[in-house]
Amino acid sequence: MKKYQKKNFPAAGVRRFLEPGPIVLVSSAWKGETNIMTMGWHMMMGFSPALFACYIWDANHSFELIRGSGQCVINLPTADLLDKVIGIGNCSGTEVDKFARFGLTPVAGSRIDAPLIRECYANFECRLYDGSQVNRQNLFIWEIVKAQVATSPKYPQTVHYRGDGVFMISGRNVSRRSQFKSQNL
Amino acid sequence: MKKYQKKNFPAAGVRRFLEPGPIVLVSSAWKGETNIMTMGWHMMMGFSPALFACYIWDANHSFELIRGSGQCVINLPTADLLDKVIGIGNCSGTEVDKFARFGLTPVAGSRIDAPLIRECYANFECRLYDGSQVNRQNLFIWEIVKAQVATSPKYPQTVHYRGDGVFMISGRNVSRRSQFKSQNL
Repeated sequence: MKKYQKKNFPAAGVRRFLEPGPIVLVSSAWKGETNIMTMGWHMMMGFSPALFACYIWDANHSFELIRGSGQCVINLPTADLLDKVIGIGNCSGTEVDKFARFGLTPVAGSRIDAPLIRECYANFECRLYDGSQVNRQNLFIWEIVKAQVATSPKYPQTVHYRGDGVFMISGRNVSRRSQFKSQNL
Repeated sequence: MKKYQKKNFPAAGVRRFLEPGPIVLVSSAWKGETNIMTMGWHMMMGFSPALFACYIWDANHSFELIRGSGQCVINLPTADLLDKVIGIGNCSGTEVDKFARFGLTPVAGSRIDAPLIRECYANFECRLYDGSQVNRQNLFIWEIVKAQVATSPKYPQTVHYRGDGVFMISGRNVSRRSQFKSQNL
């Protein structure tokens, strides 16, 4: 596993990592229990405050921890963690301590009580911003209250899910900055 | 530009194309006017019905067409269309007929009134499923009522936005199907 050195990162800039649509690991804690889930259904919703929405199926064990605490960490795994990402998605926190099973290191959150995953490229601590659609649509809207990102590489190699066991691995990054109007960057 | 031959595709399977998080082109029609916008803030929300959510900034000209009609088409452009994708995002439908300006061909929708974009790899016709958060959060929840997808290649090369004018181009696809429990595929 890679060992990333991380630094604080402006929450308003996390689209760099989340807007491309990677699979993320969601860590949570509630009433002495922690868990990790694999998630691909999410989107950016704002810059300042930094808003991020996700759909969490209510049959997932993490759903109750996340709803109960109103907190979670969005952790960004890179392609070297793909086997763990799959394993985490294929077992339940009702039966397994996923940090122990997958050899991942919990790090205490600084703004929230849920643990960060050290081995991930980035960690985004989230507090529930709008829970009005949680019971109706399984939809959570989060404010990212603290972001920590690896100092290198500038862009991580992430995994993106297509269903049926197929992942797309992120490819090259190209700048087309000169083609943009400044207010649209 | 590529010319894709398309076939009908099961709406329940569109995650293959949308869950990886590509930039999409949203086409709409309302009161005799059509428009196209570039969008990266979206996520899957269900298989059957096939639900898809997106955030649309209410300052976008398309916002009124989409809210007014309760319909849109999610069109999936491939990397060969990147310059057009950027151009569409950098001008406003209040001043420009984007189909004409960018040499794109409108095709009549079969289930809705908004036009599809022929040059895209896939076209997903959407009807508003839950508009309760449109005015409050600029959040639309759609049902994909018809899907048409290119017959080849099996997986498109898509563009994913990082902000600051930087795009990630989708990379290789890998199957890890054998590592999944069947109910989790």
